[in-house]
Amino acid sequence: MTHFSIAQKVLFQHCDPAGIVFYPRYFEMINYAVESWFEEGLNVPFSTLHFERNSAIPTATINTVFKAPSRLGDILDIGLTVNRIGGASLDLEIEAAANDNIRFSATLTLVHVNGTSGKPKPWPEDIRERIETLLRETL
Amino acid sequence: MTHFSIAQKVLFQHCDPAGIVFYPRYFEMINYAVESWFEEGLNVPFSTLHFERNSAIPTATINTVFKAPSRLGDILDIGLTVNRIGGASLDLEIEAAANDNIRFSATLTLVHVNGTSGKPKPWPEDIRERIETLLRETL
Amino acid sequence: MTHFSIAQKVLFQHCDPAGIVFYPRYFEMINYAVESWFEEGLNVPFSTLHFERNSAIPTATINTVFKAPSRLGDILDIGLTVNRIGGASLDLEIEAAANDNIRFSATLTLVHVNGTSGKPKPWPEDIRERIETLLRETL
Amino acid sequence: MTHFSIAQKVLFQHCDPAGIVFYPRYFEMINYAVESWFEEGLNVPFSTLHFERNSAIPTATINTVFKAPSRLGDILDIGLTVNRIGGASLDLEIEAAANDNIRFSATLTLVHVNGTSGKPKPWPEDIRERIETLLRETL
Repeated sequence: MTHFSIAQKVLFQHCDPAGIVFYPRYFEMINYAVESWFEEGLNVPFSTLHFERNSAIPTATINTVFKAPSRLGDILDIGLTVNRIGGASLDLEIEAAANDNIRFSATLTLVHVNGTSGKPKPWPEDIRERIETLLRETL
Repeated sequence: MTHFSIAQKVLFQHCDPAGIVFYPRYFEMINYAVESWFEEGLNVPFSTLHFERNSAIPTATINTVFKAPSRLGDILDIGLTVNRIGGASLDLEIEAAANDNIRFSATLTLVHVNGTSGKPKPWPEDIRERIETLLRETL
Repeated sequence: MTHFSIAQKVLFQHCDPAGIVFYPRYFEMINYAVESWFEEGLNVPFSTLHFERNSAIPTATINTVFKAPSRLGDILDIGLTVNRIGGASLDLEIEAAANDNIRFSATLTLVHVNGTSGKPKPWPEDIRERIETLLRETL
Repeated sequence: MTHFSIAQKVLFQHCDPAGIVFYPRYFEMINYAVESWFEEGLNVPFSTLHFERNSAIPTATINTVFKAPSRLGDILDIGLTVNRIGGASLDLEIEAAANDNIRFSATLTLVHVNGTSGKPKPWPEDIRERIETLLRETL
């Protein structure tokens, strides 16, 4: 069960001389999925998160499997699933598919940190509540 | 023991509004390390690999741990170590450090494929030999 | 009068340590506007243009004025206007605004070329007709 | 006469499905040339400029002509020439060539601004002096 998803068209700028998506561009798409979810799903746009709340959510680890190449013009359906929320961490799973064919899947851990010091700080209550609600609803 | 290394300065274009390297840019640096190693270490520039030999070496999996942020102006020392060569696969480890402080480490598996079909094809003898020599020398 | 427009949100990945769009990212947006117009306005997706028709449309010149910075979360309205079609060239104007505030404007000349030789080749009739229709309608 | 130059290899990450440099990447190279010149030529690294001096040097206008495509593995010689220094502005010319073949040339105007307000502020004396010395030496 996915908690959020975006559609991302494979553009010219994503592709390499082999005519397929250059894999570092997939990480920009992953970041875009997380950014969109924070804004639309959790109601905390990145501009608010970074500039008003002085927080950041750097990625601590990310493990990715690339299962099939994506080509110019493919429409990727990128789904995001929350696996677990910790004190200041968040485990996500992100999977992209096109035409029922999985292109990549990633598991990542984000950490909520103070924007100035970079030190972990507990998730604020509003964000924690929204995420816990998501997790309860998908039991 | 590293088999190859490059120096990469953290440029303005690598950094995000939090003032640290935006992590998708690290994957461009990882690709640059592999590309430089193929050219300088294995004597097979990517232009030869892709256009003359009609091969490609897509990344099949990559697991990455981000240990500390990197900032504008840092000089990253990015080391590449070969862990294992298979029939058409290659396991690498890549670690970046600055001032003796590890910034990220990644383990990845590349696959040597036919540039047209995208199907795995065995490593050509010249590349295999150079890599096996490296592995023997570092026993 | 604009002939085509897209909306582009300013994402984290577009912004630099100064918290504003890093200007090379604007050129990716310009390319995205042209790519979307070819697909949706001219009915020629870039995958068709490049791989089926063996054409390319490199940018020959581009002049850009950056009038005001854009920030994380801004929604840019990027409008494209055709100024003139030549034998194998195309003059476009692209302007981006947010909240009625112009962020950048660019005039560019594209050239339709053979994908293999890179040599200019006349616009195919279907593309030329659609563009000339646009130009007539906006007299 | 160029006042500063860098060598930039065309990497896999710079190239598009047509096998040539995707032109927005050239603007990253232009930015890299300016950034390197500030650090090595003017003795003001970007980290100092942005974080210690709280300045920024956004590009106000840039006009670019792309004269010939660049391919994977090309070594671009990117030269920077100062044309004129104003109160808070700077006119530069940047030209890239490989094998005596010009690939692109750009004229741009940078503006020295306050990093917080984004408003123009006069060039600091140390930077102005170094630039005026360059200009005098090349009369």
